[in-house]
Amino acid sequence: MDRRSFLKTSALGGATAAATGLAAPALAQGTRTLTMVTTWPRGLAGVWDSVERFASSVNAMSDGSLIVEPKAAGELVGGLEVFDAVTAGQADMYHGADYYFTGQHPGWAYFTTVPFGMTAPEMMVWYYGMGGMEMHHSLGEIFGLKSFIAGQTGAQGGGWFRKEISSATDFQGLKFRMPGLGGEALSKLGASVQTLPGGEIYQALSSGALDGTEWIGPWSDEKLGLQEVCDFYYPAGFHEPGAALSVATNLDVFNELTPAQQKIIEVAAGDAHQHNYSLFMANNGPALQRLISAGVQVMSFSDDVWDAYGSASKEVLDGYMDDTLFADIRNSAESAMSATSGWSGRSDSVYTAQRDRVLSTL
Amino acid sequence: MDRRSFLKTSALGGATAAATGLAAPALAQGTRTLTMVTTWPRGLAGVWDSVERFASSVNAMSDGSLIVEPKAAGELVGGLEVFDAVTAGQADMYHGADYYFTGQHPGWAYFTTVPFGMTAPEMMVWYYGMGGMEMHHSLGEIFGLKSFIAGQTGAQGGGWFRKEISSATDFQGLKFRMPGLGGEALSKLGASVQTLPGGEIYQALSSGALDGTEWIGPWSDEKLGLQEVCDFYYPAGFHEPGAALSVATNLDVFNELTPAQQKIIEVAAGDAHQHNYSLFMANNGPALQRLISAGVQVMSFSDDVWDAYGSASKEVLDGYMDDTLFADIRNSAESAMSATSGWSGRSDSVYTAQRDRVLSTL
Repeated sequence: MDRRSFLKTSALGGATAAATGLAAPALAQGTRTLTMVTTWPRGLAGVWDSVERFASSVNAMSDGSLIVEPKAAGELVGGLEVFDAVTAGQADMYHGADYYFTGQHPGWAYFTTVPFGMTAPEMMVWYYGMGGMEMHHSLGEIFGLKSFIAGQTGAQGGGWFRKEISSATDFQGLKFRMPGLGGEALSKLGASVQTLPGGEIYQALSSGALDGTEWIGPWSDEKLGLQEVCDFYYPAGFHEPGAALSVATNLDVFNELTPAQQKIIEVAAGDAHQHNYSLFMANNGPALQRLISAGVQVMSFSDDVWDAYGSASKEVLDGYMDDTLFADIRNSAESAMSATSGWSGRSDSVYTAQRDRVLSTL
Repeated sequence: MDRRSFLKTSALGGATAAATGLAAPALAQGTRTLTMVTTWPRGLAGVWDSVERFASSVNAMSDGSLIVEPKAAGELVGGLEVFDAVTAGQADMYHGADYYFTGQHPGWAYFTTVPFGMTAPEMMVWYYGMGGMEMHHSLGEIFGLKSFIAGQTGAQGGGWFRKEISSATDFQGLKFRMPGLGGEALSKLGASVQTLPGGEIYQALSSGALDGTEWIGPWSDEKLGLQEVCDFYYPAGFHEPGAALSVATNLDVFNELTPAQQKIIEVAAGDAHQHNYSLFMANNGPALQRLISAGVQVMSFSDDVWDAYGSASKEVLDGYMDDTLFADIRNSAESAMSATSGWSGRSDSVYTAQRDRVLSTL
């Protein structure tokens, strides 16, 4: 992609938007209203909670001087059009998952999740403590955005299967639903990768059009009823080890705000991130317990499956390394991940394994 | 403890404080200055960063209408006197670690860390997603406080030893530095438990007055030079699996603030929590790598040591169960921990172990 020509197009898009009169920033009685387009249907469990927490914190902390007005997908623009709408100035900000925008730049993937990447706590460390946020801003600036992560689903499950997966060869010809870079990797294992939307998954599994699927985590998967159409659940997966959601503000709009308002947006996004992770985790644990009680077989992949996942993921990520910015982001993320897991793998991981073992005997 | 008589004393303390003229809340030109006493020496690595991040976020988001003025330990009151100073109205708020105040109520321990308790991410889930914050507020109300966690060191290391620990019997007569409930548990294993302040540890290990010590984590431990006086380091420990720091505001002061200012304090505390965890983790990983390069032997305790830690920790916590509020807090925390680890133990833990294994082969 040629970024200069993109920027020109983007500026043109802004002019067009003004002509259509779509959501120009409001300024009335000291109140600034920011229109926030989103990728999500209104009320989507977990995800919409992040939208609402962010908006309500901004409204409350600014004492009503800054109002964020969320719009569900389709209300102003389609769910995947939010990036273009905000870069073009048709809306003030978006709430979405940045890996939907890898067509604009592959580096966006790292601000949601990548195969064989960071868990949610590791990403938090990179983002807030090891330069991740600064890289998010650098990438955003190219597109006229000020971006912050503002939500987090935690690790997404490895998936639901109608048959047990014993080795990597079982993926040959398997009709499996997995979007994004993870799906690209899975296709290298011989799977027939599908990208059905959530509403069509249950039926496809019932009819045999699909042999398996990933979705989000136990809380969301249970709502979809996947336990009714698949016997085997693999909680640990390789494709989305911790998926962040983002809020991005049009950079011109952001720069017009007061320093206090800018700080409120930054801190409200971080707060939404932490609360949203907690919300997903708080619901995933009990949901997994219910699924187990309902007879779902909880499995884990064998080492050779993980080996295959790892090689395929590396191959997919290596394919983007000719882009310098992508390479910078990847190197920063992987070096942070390695340093963090070097400590937590010897402290938290050892501790929790021993604690859970010992507590089961007391 | 009789809580009613405590509250009377506290009110009286408030009157005394006003008479001494010590830090009465300032109101000038629409600016409210909140005096924050802290448990810490100014500039203490990691911990003071949480103080500064909280204060600067409040100042910035309130557009200067709310100013938090941090005072180091000893500037107004001693480091462990901050709780009494704020309940008595002598200062507006404190920044400290709530487990220093178990003398006031044993339940405070759960808002820092307890032996065999939650890791930092697990505590985040409990606090923000499973009722922990509400319990913090209930406990705080009894003492006239509005409390929020606002920092997090992550898992504290198992400790430094001059000799290898092969089994639980090696603790018999071992002179080991460990404060708090962890120290209580360790003494049940026959250790001679000491509670030296940080500044005296190095010398005590050099002279043989101590056989070992815990401190914080690799980042902080390296600054103390513990690697120069101990050969063996056990990264995973049982005593402080994820230690939170807190900001508590005098409840009358908090209630006088506007809803916008109250929300700013809540969200700034959460933001400081997330950033502080990230900061400690970002520094612990590289510090551990340096320690390993310097020849420190990185060890892990055997199962029988963990068994002994577990039994002793349970015995210590069980000793407080006649207090109903303590029991409520413990039950809430342990049920959240169990639900969360039921999911993350099957997802994040399996994933990170496989990822780190596979990446080492690619």
